[in-house]
Amino acid sequence: MALAKILAAGRGPVVCRMASASGARRFYSAGKKQTLGFIGLGQMGFAMASNLFASTVSTHKFVIHDQNAGSLERFVGTAGKNGVSTSSLSIAATPRDVAEQADVVFTMLPAGPHVRGVYEEVVKGLRKDVLCVDCSTIDVATAREVAAWVGEKGARMVDAPVSGGTGAATAGTLTFMVGAASERDVEAARPFLEKMGKNIYHCGLNGTGQAAKICNNMMLGICMVGASETFNLGRRLGLAPSLLNQILNTSSGRSWSTDTYNPVPHLNPNVPASKDYNGGFGVTLMAKDMGLAVTAATATHTPVPLGAAAEQIYKVVAATHGLEGKDFSVVYRWMGGEKEVKK
Amino acid sequence: MALAKILAAGRGPVVCRMASASGARRFYSAGKKQTLGFIGLGQMGFAMASNLFASTVSTHKFVIHDQNAGSLERFVGTAGKNGVSTSSLSIAATPRDVAEQADVVFTMLPAGPHVRGVYEEVVKGLRKDVLCVDCSTIDVATAREVAAWVGEKGARMVDAPVSGGTGAATAGTLTFMVGAASERDVEAARPFLEKMGKNIYHCGLNGTGQAAKICNNMMLGICMVGASETFNLGRRLGLAPSLLNQILNTSSGRSWSTDTYNPVPHLNPNVPASKDYNGGFGVTLMAKDMGLAVTAATATHTPVPLGAAAEQIYKVVAATHGLEGKDFSVVYRWMGGEKEVKK
Amino acid sequence: MALAKILAAGRGPVVCRMASASGARRFYSAGKKQTLGFIGLGQMGFAMASNLFASTVSTHKFVIHDQNAGSLERFVGTAGKNGVSTSSLSIAATPRDVAEQADVVFTMLPAGPHVRGVYEEVVKGLRKDVLCVDCSTIDVATAREVAAWVGEKGARMVDAPVSGGTGAATAGTLTFMVGAASERDVEAARPFLEKMGKNIYHCGLNGTGQAAKICNNMMLGICMVGASETFNLGRRLGLAPSLLNQILNTSSGRSWSTDTYNPVPHLNPNVPASKDYNGGFGVTLMAKDMGLAVTAATATHTPVPLGAAAEQIYKVVAATHGLEGKDFSVVYRWMGGEKEVKK
Amino acid sequence: MALAKILAAGRGPVVCRMASASGARRFYSAGKKQTLGFIGLGQMGFAMASNLFASTVSTHKFVIHDQNAGSLERFVGTAGKNGVSTSSLSIAATPRDVAEQADVVFTMLPAGPHVRGVYEEVVKGLRKDVLCVDCSTIDVATAREVAAWVGEKGARMVDAPVSGGTGAATAGTLTFMVGAASERDVEAARPFLEKMGKNIYHCGLNGTGQAAKICNNMMLGICMVGASETFNLGRRLGLAPSLLNQILNTSSGRSWSTDTYNPVPHLNPNVPASKDYNGGFGVTLMAKDMGLAVTAATATHTPVPLGAAAEQIYKVVAATHGLEGKDFSVVYRWMGGEKEVKK
Repeated sequence: MALAKILAAGRGPVVCRMASASGARRFYSAGKKQTLGFIGLGQMGFAMASNLFASTVSTHKFVIHDQNAGSLERFVGTAGKNGVSTSSLSIAATPRDVAEQADVVFTMLPAGPHVRGVYEEVVKGLRKDVLCVDCSTIDVATAREVAAWVGEKGARMVDAPVSGGTGAATAGTLTFMVGAASERDVEAARPFLEKMGKNIYHCGLNGTGQAAKICNNMMLGICMVGASETFNLGRRLGLAPSLLNQILNTSSGRSWSTDTYNPVPHLNPNVPASKDYNGGFGVTLMAKDMGLAVTAATATHTPVPLGAAAEQIYKVVAATHGLEGKDFSVVYRWMGGEKEVKK
Repeated sequence: MALAKILAAGRGPVVCRMASASGARRFYSAGKKQTLGFIGLGQMGFAMASNLFASTVSTHKFVIHDQNAGSLERFVGTAGKNGVSTSSLSIAATPRDVAEQADVVFTMLPAGPHVRGVYEEVVKGLRKDVLCVDCSTIDVATAREVAAWVGEKGARMVDAPVSGGTGAATAGTLTFMVGAASERDVEAARPFLEKMGKNIYHCGLNGTGQAAKICNNMMLGICMVGASETFNLGRRLGLAPSLLNQILNTSSGRSWSTDTYNPVPHLNPNVPASKDYNGGFGVTLMAKDMGLAVTAATATHTPVPLGAAAEQIYKVVAATHGLEGKDFSVVYRWMGGEKEVKK
Repeated sequence: MALAKILAAGRGPVVCRMASASGARRFYSAGKKQTLGFIGLGQMGFAMASNLFASTVSTHKFVIHDQNAGSLERFVGTAGKNGVSTSSLSIAATPRDVAEQADVVFTMLPAGPHVRGVYEEVVKGLRKDVLCVDCSTIDVATAREVAAWVGEKGARMVDAPVSGGTGAATAGTLTFMVGAASERDVEAARPFLEKMGKNIYHCGLNGTGQAAKICNNMMLGICMVGASETFNLGRRLGLAPSLLNQILNTSSGRSWSTDTYNPVPHLNPNVPASKDYNGGFGVTLMAKDMGLAVTAATATHTPVPLGAAAEQIYKVVAATHGLEGKDFSVVYRWMGGEKEVKK
Repeated sequence: MALAKILAAGRGPVVCRMASASGARRFYSAGKKQTLGFIGLGQMGFAMASNLFASTVSTHKFVIHDQNAGSLERFVGTAGKNGVSTSSLSIAATPRDVAEQADVVFTMLPAGPHVRGVYEEVVKGLRKDVLCVDCSTIDVATAREVAAWVGEKGARMVDAPVSGGTGAATAGTLTFMVGAASERDVEAARPFLEKMGKNIYHCGLNGTGQAAKICNNMMLGICMVGASETFNLGRRLGLAPSLLNQILNTSSGRSWSTDTYNPVPHLNPNVPASKDYNGGFGVTLMAKDMGLAVTAATATHTPVPLGAAAEQIYKVVAATHGLEGKDFSVVYRWMGGEKEVKK
């Protein structure tokens, strides 16, 4: 409705439906400006696209798509509220439509099947040399398969999953782990990635960006369960969590899960554990990422005993009533870390 | 034999056998100097006692005991070679003998049953107010039981297990985790602990030093297995270990096991992994410490799923031909981390 | 109160308090009848003692003790109701009191510390050659230690833990796993054990009865978790549990946990799973037995990766609100086995 | 070479290369006899095809394919040696060639990618109503996808993985677990399956045969690790394996892995454990099946903590020098079950 009003008023972005796609394309290609496309405006994608749009508004056109019309409206509205001109912003009706207009296509989607579905459409609209940048976290096999589809059209693909969560997405301080067929493709993506993040790692060929992401998150998932066990055991043996944390963090038990993002409430001030486990990185997402890692391990005959055990734990926690919407550090609560210790 | 020679030459330390114990004691108590006793001159104990002896030689007498006569000889010989006067150094024939002479008794023993056995003897010789400092890593229950025995004699006990390994023991930079009935007991031990280490944490009542130690080592043991899985998975997915390490260490997968003591050869220059897994902290000791942690967890009804899984792994590694004498980071080799990746 | 009335009426069992113990003993020894003692009338002990008393009432005297006076009253009352003469039944005030009267002492207690506590008292009253039969499930180390105490008094000890649960205890069809110093001790116990059970296995020296018990229960605990995982996975892949069960039970996936005591409701008619997981063998007890097994494994350096993982699971289930009082097969519910499958 | 000779002599089977396929097809269709095709003559497939061929030789034509020419020769030679007429037997050069001739196509292949690859060819040759029976053990998702391909050609597909191993394959006593779109398809396959096995279960829609297979094998894999842990723990606690086995098998710890296929040498006479772990079901295959189960669990968000832990163990065992070619019960040896127990 709000979107309809914007459109009716004629001051909003141009909506390019399929029927008008070629006209729209011609219009854009008439100018000298390159066009950036962004598909997927969920929590992460919205924040990333906002930064990218705001920082390229004077030099690029911007076309967005999401299957949820509400997200598109909100994007337009938020840009306006923030004083960013929306005159170069347009809404595309389909992924194919984005692909037909854009010189660079960004995607940020929930899981492998979504990426597969969107790129089945995208490739129908791709021109030669267009650069596709998929920031979703998905399995390595799908990443490699989709890159092959894009390559068959003469276009280029990089996988560029992120770490850092919604906080870093909003602040523009994400870390990108990039897999690409060539250094040239990475360099083509880099100026845009730098608008959304601060660390950009070229990991190797297509799929290695995903590999780096799931390796990091598997290690993170293991350490967080380990930290939860350790602090719970400590307090039952009579150790104050703050003292135990001081010891671990100056000793060999130190990790990001203890010194920066401790699962025990109030050891770190602004982390989810100190806010009833709200915000942060959802336990359901961690269960998904651990699943990607363990499935990749099975496919490559790699033993990951603790990774596999931790995946099982996150699956159980994600299926536990009342915990499914919490940050993954809620595993400490699930383990009974907040229950009174019987003497 | 060498010891016999030293003794025969009359230039070595006084050996106080049981028969002559009271005479020896009288001799020492005639002076104003306090006497320090040290029982247990294994790898760790030898290094710790050496530092303590060298830094107190001008102010204290020093009496040592070990069931291995060779260690005693070597201690005397090494002190001499290092130019430390051995005139105030004596060898006791039994733990009881040490207890009868010393004002402060240090013990550094392999496991709970040894501590129990030694203190059954020590308490027979203890005088009121003598301070006992057990630096062994043992189970919390034994630590508390032995402290009770000592308390019944009117003497005082602290548990003060260490972290840092033989390197830190030699350098005098150990971390001590101290459990004690009172702040006063900790303060009594502190000046001596400071000769052997640089961090001294008062963790709570008796047994909490042990609790802190096993909590730290359980977390460490989990992280090391996790790091080994992660790097092995990464390389099989096409990631160079050095790049993956750079990513983890600037992201949420960071831990001491990745940034300081990486199990992959040659990511950190001087760690065991870069020296064919020699030196460091033996996998057998890690298996033992994980066992202490898991047993304490069972006794306190604390779930430690990853701790229990990791304990099992170290037990298997410690029983694997060719790996039993290696550093615990050899779990990476055990997992196949050094095998060629099939393409 | 009811007990006081029985006693006041003079028709009830003789109560032998410490003060009158020696007199009571003389009285009994004047007759030819042997005396059986039974300490510990919890759920299991009550049923076992009832069978033993009923089947020996014409040939033996019977003396009972429990720290809960209500259990003692109930025992007397139930025997009367069942038409068993209580004229040869007496109540002892302490474990020592039982030991002073009995020729054979049976104990059935919750855990190792209780056994230790009761036998510290029992040994004060033991005469030479008295046979002690501990039916509790406890750790091997405690079983061996207590047997040594009893041996020091010239008396004899067997450990005889049971399997079969309250159903078998009531029916007199328990299985006894017996550890004893000699075949002669087993034979001395056998006629009495046969009143309470149908299978009696001599496993080896003292402690091996406990070893057999915890080995069986570890295997059982693993299979039950395995069965729960398997049936839950099956139904999510579209398999009817009854069909899957038919397949497993005629194939290599068969086990007691699938063909006799299936955790899926209504595959076996009378098991706890078919009665809202009530009755049976409590998840808390399974957690305890798994703990005994894993602790014994740690002490003997035996890898038990699945045993350790299953122990962790039972600990979490036993700490889950609403499940703590259920049969151990409730692990199927805990895993989400009764939740609707999303298509 | 041997094959060439057979062919040159004109006494062997007709080889239908692609070039001559249509001629060959006409020849066969001229008769009234139905044709059976069999693709995949590995260890299992060879034994199954031999039984199927021998028992249908008078009523059906038989066409075989394998990418290994040696297997084809051996099949022909073995049939001849066993006195089975090879006049109705032909060799096809490609899977497509089999499909073009056969009324029923059987496939028995190592893994999902092989099934995918073979059926990509098969569907090119399929006529309407031909029945395809895939006996391979593969992932549920691939089974469903391939069934859809076959369905698009108007042909029919059932997944019919087996249990029982090479012994049962040779004896014709396999168990088939069948997934099919309709009862009619199962009935069409049944007469042929009965030539190769004795139990045929209709599990549900396409893919459920695979689901039943991996559920059974996951349970089996868990029980075998559990049995290995249990017997190893038992003997270290002083229990003779034969006695422990007697106890388990009359108690609640009973399973197929204890009473029929015990991993301890010489408890069951003819199992691999009693033959240096040779023969049976390879540990590499068990690792593969456990991987299929755990991957299916991840895809359906099903927690399988012990299944995941056991998968890891089989992966490690399968990568252990000297054990990779052994039966999966060799996990007992891997755990140290044959090492002398230190007292």
